[in-house]
Amino acid sequence: MSGDVIRCKAAVAREAGKPLVIEEVEVAPPQKMEVRLKILFTSLCHTDVYFWEAKGQNPLFPRILGHEAGGIVESVGEGVTELQPGDKVLPVFTGECGECRHFVHSGCVAKINPDAPLDKVCVLSCGISTGMGATLNVAKPKEGMTVAVFGLGAVGLAAAEGARIAGASRIIGIDLNESRADEAKKFGVTEFVNPKDHDKPIQEVIVAMTDGGVDRSVECTGNVRAMISAFECVHDGWGVAVLVGVPSKDDEFKTLPINFLNERTLKGTFFGNYKPRTDIPGVVEKYMNKEIEVEKFITHQVGFSDINKAFDLMLKGESLRCIIQMDA
Amino acid sequence: MSGDVIRCKAAVAREAGKPLVIEEVEVAPPQKMEVRLKILFTSLCHTDVYFWEAKGQNPLFPRILGHEAGGIVESVGEGVTELQPGDKVLPVFTGECGECRHFVHSGCVAKINPDAPLDKVCVLSCGISTGMGATLNVAKPKEGMTVAVFGLGAVGLAAAEGARIAGASRIIGIDLNESRADEAKKFGVTEFVNPKDHDKPIQEVIVAMTDGGVDRSVECTGNVRAMISAFECVHDGWGVAVLVGVPSKDDEFKTLPINFLNERTLKGTFFGNYKPRTDIPGVVEKYMNKEIEVEKFITHQVGFSDINKAFDLMLKGESLRCIIQMDA
Repeated sequence: MSGDVIRCKAAVAREAGKPLVIEEVEVAPPQKMEVRLKILFTSLCHTDVYFWEAKGQNPLFPRILGHEAGGIVESVGEGVTELQPGDKVLPVFTGECGECRHFVHSGCVAKINPDAPLDKVCVLSCGISTGMGATLNVAKPKEGMTVAVFGLGAVGLAAAEGARIAGASRIIGIDLNESRADEAKKFGVTEFVNPKDHDKPIQEVIVAMTDGGVDRSVECTGNVRAMISAFECVHDGWGVAVLVGVPSKDDEFKTLPINFLNERTLKGTFFGNYKPRTDIPGVVEKYMNKEIEVEKFITHQVGFSDINKAFDLMLKGESLRCIIQMDA
Repeated sequence: MSGDVIRCKAAVAREAGKPLVIEEVEVAPPQKMEVRLKILFTSLCHTDVYFWEAKGQNPLFPRILGHEAGGIVESVGEGVTELQPGDKVLPVFTGECGECRHFVHSGCVAKINPDAPLDKVCVLSCGISTGMGATLNVAKPKEGMTVAVFGLGAVGLAAAEGARIAGASRIIGIDLNESRADEAKKFGVTEFVNPKDHDKPIQEVIVAMTDGGVDRSVECTGNVRAMISAFECVHDGWGVAVLVGVPSKDDEFKTLPINFLNERTLKGTFFGNYKPRTDIPGVVEKYMNKEIEVEKFITHQVGFSDINKAFDLMLKGESLRCIIQMDA
């Protein structure tokens, strides 16, 4: 099987911001150290929308989007020994070869528990792990600390969920979309702040609310002004701000250096600092053991032929995660 | 004694950048929780020069400078129980009250081993601890890591010394002053880079020298461009940059946010994250046990009446530390 080119359906983005078109495409056989996957469920992630809109970046079309997904191994290329056809897997956008000191693009596939429901755990292959890991693995709030989360989409709510799991005493959620306020409570957010309700910079509002600043902040919007606010709202002396959101390529992060000298820390993270092959099977196990809940992130489900609805829902801010069933 | 105003000599800065004038001044008795010290040795620190030059800041004159020093307790105010007249101490510019969650300006005095020679250990009350602590307590290089140090004055050389103690495999020193190259070797610097010798940004030079970037960097100049270089020269995935230098108040730190998202960390530190009363007596003990050397930082010594020479030497880049003997 591994030697054949196969034909399958794909939703192709041909132009920035225009509806995807379902077409038949050819997929080459897996090369050395590659695997070919049959994707069963895809969950639309905001990064897909970001590349589809292609604002502030070099557009790259035609393009087949979709990276937050679940599927099975269809065939394997030469040299692949740890995976075989039929294995249930989550593809992860950042790889882990296990051999060099940096992540590379071989080994981007995490083999998971065969009993795991792919229509649920597919969301762990990107956004939810990214947000939860940003808090649990990078910001690392101690019990009783205060945490601010900028942006209450799925990633931000997952960051809040991580803060709740870590035992944060206050979780302040910041979003321009007032309709997030209620939903956010399910994810542990104790206070909702809408920057539109305030005349002064939102970092000043948060500093005033928290007697000098929060202990930790997690930025999940990608807006460079929110990044600066997230950094400047942490307490001097020990505050840690974590950047998760993907910025436009020309945005500049600017702050007064004194904000660093006052013993604040600023870190970025990619995929919540999880190593895909090593860590993600364990995150799936936590779901199987009911230690983490993913259902509350999944607000919609559509068939593949309705894929453009998933984009509409996300653009309108109505969905957290919309699962796309590939064979429907 | 504690009730009396005393008269003593002080070198007074009356105008930005102008020679200090030795005058007699009155010193009020110590108030509640205060102590009055007899300073025996002062070591000129670059921060003194910075406030004396008063560039890019609100000038504040007349002013008595000098914060890196050693002396004995002359008298104590009401409520002070942990110190008594005659105790040998280092004053530290950042305090530690031991009672609130932040450092405050009570308890700025570290009582040290009475056998410690004040003309040597006075340098541990600011610059040398600041640099060494930035590496050992904040950057925390693991054995075998590569470390870049920006600025090879006393603080930077102390940062390099910290990297040497931590077992760094390569210590890259960056300075515009070519004459630092030889001296830096004594402090563990294995490679010297002068930005003047290169056309491209120094961070690119360092990234090229180190196969993708250093593991840790420590910025000790206070120049905002050097801060940006120090951040951008650390390896993605795990690099940590530490800011030590005091910036001009209007300088802006600017970088592309993607540099954070690639899992770099940027931290600032104040006094090397040492807690003055808790930690500094132990640092002095390390000197007494010959685990750390301070003599190599002390390049000059002058009497109090020659205090302006100490400023000249530092401005010309000729001294690392010049000790001022107060009773000479």
